[in-house]
Amino acid sequence: MQKLRGTALVAHGGGPTAVINASLVGVIEERSRHDEITALYGARYGIKGVLEEDLIDLDREDPELIELIARTPGSALGSCRYKLKEQDYERILAVFRAHNVRYFFYTGGNDSMDTTLKVARLARASGYELRAIGIPKTIDNDLAETDHCPGYGSAALFYACALRDIGADIRELPGRVSVVEVMGRNAGWLVAATALARRNADDAPHLIYLPERRLSADRFLADVEAVYRRLGYAVVAVCEGQRDERGEPFGADLIAADGFSHELAGNLAHVLSQLITRRLKLRARSEKPGLLGRSSAAFVSPSDQAEARLCGREAVRAATAGISEGMVTLVREAGPGYRIETGLAELERVANAERLFPQEWIHPEGNDVLPAFLEYVKPLTGEVAPRPRLRAVPVGRRL
Amino acid sequence: MQKLRGTALVAHGGGPTAVINASLVGVIEERSRHDEITALYGARYGIKGVLEEDLIDLDREDPELIELIARTPGSALGSCRYKLKEQDYERILAVFRAHNVRYFFYTGGNDSMDTTLKVARLARASGYELRAIGIPKTIDNDLAETDHCPGYGSAALFYACALRDIGADIRELPGRVSVVEVMGRNAGWLVAATALARRNADDAPHLIYLPERRLSADRFLADVEAVYRRLGYAVVAVCEGQRDERGEPFGADLIAADGFSHELAGNLAHVLSQLITRRLKLRARSEKPGLLGRSSAAFVSPSDQAEARLCGREAVRAATAGISEGMVTLVREAGPGYRIETGLAELERVANAERLFPQEWIHPEGNDVLPAFLEYVKPLTGEVAPRPRLRAVPVGRRL
Repeated sequence: MQKLRGTALVAHGGGPTAVINASLVGVIEERSRHDEITALYGARYGIKGVLEEDLIDLDREDPELIELIARTPGSALGSCRYKLKEQDYERILAVFRAHNVRYFFYTGGNDSMDTTLKVARLARASGYELRAIGIPKTIDNDLAETDHCPGYGSAALFYACALRDIGADIRELPGRVSVVEVMGRNAGWLVAATALARRNADDAPHLIYLPERRLSADRFLADVEAVYRRLGYAVVAVCEGQRDERGEPFGADLIAADGFSHELAGNLAHVLSQLITRRLKLRARSEKPGLLGRSSAAFVSPSDQAEARLCGREAVRAATAGISEGMVTLVREAGPGYRIETGLAELERVANAERLFPQEWIHPEGNDVLPAFLEYVKPLTGEVAPRPRLRAVPVGRRL
Repeated sequence: MQKLRGTALVAHGGGPTAVINASLVGVIEERSRHDEITALYGARYGIKGVLEEDLIDLDREDPELIELIARTPGSALGSCRYKLKEQDYERILAVFRAHNVRYFFYTGGNDSMDTTLKVARLARASGYELRAIGIPKTIDNDLAETDHCPGYGSAALFYACALRDIGADIRELPGRVSVVEVMGRNAGWLVAATALARRNADDAPHLIYLPERRLSADRFLADVEAVYRRLGYAVVAVCEGQRDERGEPFGADLIAADGFSHELAGNLAHVLSQLITRRLKLRARSEKPGLLGRSSAAFVSPSDQAEARLCGREAVRAATAGISEGMVTLVREAGPGYRIETGLAELERVANAERLFPQEWIHPEGNDVLPAFLEYVKPLTGEVAPRPRLRAVPVGRRL
C-alpha cells in the first residue's frame, strides 16, 4: 500500500468529557510515528472550526504541556453542537483540499459519527482521497458496537461518589429526602452507575430510575414513601431524561401551562422534590450537579483516561493502515479479570444508532439495577471508596 | 485548681461539613491526655441524642478507624436541626447528671453556640458543675469572634473548583450561560470564594453576587448581557440567599402564585437561568451542586482539616483548664505568611450573632469581590490548580 501523505485534522464534537483530551493526546502521540502525516492541525470549537477555517497547529505545542492536557478534563480544542446543513459538507471538503487534509479524526458521539461518515462519503464521491476515523466519546455510553465509551467511566465515577457523599449527608442528618438529577437523555447508563455508591444496606441511592422504564408519579411516590418509612430518610437518583407512563418527559403533566410555571421543565429533580413535599408532606430537596458531572477535574477514572488515549492512538494507526469510515471501539476480552483491546466498527453501524441500557439489567420493580450491571461497570470507574463509619457502641441508658 | 472528674460528651449541631469529624477526633485525641475525663461519649444525631439518651461510647472505637474518620467529611456522630424547647434544657441536664457528664463539647454554628450557653447557664443556676465549650463549625463562615470557621475552607475549595470546571465547560462549548447556585443563607462568604477559580481574564465566574448587596433583575440581566457580548458565554455564581432590591428573596416577585409555579422557589439558579432565556433570548442553564458543596470527599482543604482538629483539641484543653461558656476561635497572626493560633471567645458574644461578608470587600458594582478578600481566603482553601490550556497557534487561512 502506498502511504498517503498529507495533513491530519482532529476535532471534537458535542459535550466535553473528562478524558476527551486524553484521546487528543493519543492522536498527537501516535502521529509522530507516521511520517506520512506531514502536519497535525486541530479545529477550534469542533466542526465549526473547520467551516470557518479556524485551525491551530498542534505541532507547535510543548510536549510537557501536552502531557498536562492529557490529564485535564474538558475539550482543549473547544467543541460545538452544530447541525450541519447540506452545503456545509462541500465547504468542509474545500477546507480539507486547501490544507491537504488527508486524515480526519472526529471525536464525538453518534451525531459526530454521522458527520464523519457523510464527509468521508462526499470525499469519496468527489475522488478526493481521505481517511476519516471516528474516536468514540460520550458520557452517556450510548454508542453502538463498543463495550463502552471513553468518558463514561469518569462521569460514572463522579455520580457514584456524588451519591455516596450526598447519601452520607442525608443519613447523618435524617428526616429528609434528596432527589439527585443525573445527566442522560434517553439512556440510563450514568444513573445506573450510582449503584456503585452502596456498601451497606442503608446506603444511597435507595431508588434508581432509568429512562428505559416508564414511571408514574404514583409509583415514584409510593417507592419514596416506603424507603422513608424504613430508614427515616431517602435518596433518589433520577435521570434527567426520565419518561412518564405515557412515554412523555416526566413531570410535564405536573407542570401547569400558565405564567412562569412551565419553566419548571428541564429541572426534573426539583419537580420531583416538590412533588414529594406536596403529596407526601416530607422535607425534600434536590441536587443537580449538572455540568460538574462531566467536567470535574477531581473525578477522572484511570482506566477511562488510559482507554481514551488508546482510542486516539488506534485511530491514527487505523487511518495510516489504509482504513476509513470506521470508529475505534473498545472490546472487552472474555475470561476473568478486565482486559480491553481496541477494535473497529463501520461508521455506518454507529452513526445515529443509540445503545440503550439493557432491560435485563433493570430490577423487575423498575427502581434499581441488577448485579450483572455492577460487574460490567466496576472496572470502568475504578474504586468508589467507602466512607468509614464509627462502630458506635451504645452507652447503657440510665433514665 | 481541683480537677473536675467526670464524663465528657461531644455532639454535632446543624449541617455537616468536610472537617467536622476532624474536630471530633481532635477531642478524642486530646482527651486521652486528661485523666480527669473518665469516659468520652458521643450523642447520636446531635442534641436529640442527648434528649433521647442515645449515646455511644467513643472509648470503644478502634484508633485506626478514628484516624480514617478524621479524614472523612460528614458527621460520623450524626446531627440534627432541632429548635430546643424550654423543657428540653431541664431534660439535657437530667441526662448529664445521670451520666455524670461534666464536660460538654458542642460543635456547630451560632444556634448551637446559643444552646451550649443556655445549657451551661442552667447548670450553673442549678449548682451542677459543668464545663461547656463550643467548637466552631460552619461552611457559611458567619460566626463572630473568629478569623474563619472550620468547614468553610473546604466548602470554599469545592465551589472554587466547581466554578473553574463548569467555567471551562462553558468556555469550550460557548454560546451558553450557566448560573451556579452556591450555598449560603445571609452571608456571601462561600459565593465570594468562587473568585479563586480565576487565572485568565476570560475565566469564570464572570459575575459574583452576594446577599449582602441587593440586586434587581434588570441589573442582573444587564450584567449577564455585557459579559455575553464580550465573551460569547457567561458563568454566574449566585448565593442561594440572594436578595432583590426590596430585600426580599430574589426571584419571589418573578414567580406567579398559582398552580405549581410558586414551587420554583428555593431554586434560584434555575429561576435566573429562565429569566435569562426569557428576557435575553440566550441559551441558559443552571447547576446546583447542593449538598455536594459540603459533603464531597474529594474537596477537603488540608489547612481546614488541620485547624478543625486543632479546635477539637483546644476545646478539651480549655475545659480541663477550668474554662466554660467559651467557644474556640481561630486567630490569624499578624505579619507575612499564614499562621494560625487558637483563642477563646465568650459564648455570649457568639451565640446568635452573624458575621456577614464585609461591604469593603465587595466590588462597587456589586457583582464581584475585591482582591483584599482573595488574600484573606487563599490560605484557607489551599491551591485551586489552574486548568492548562493549549498554546493554540493559528494555522494561516488559505480560503
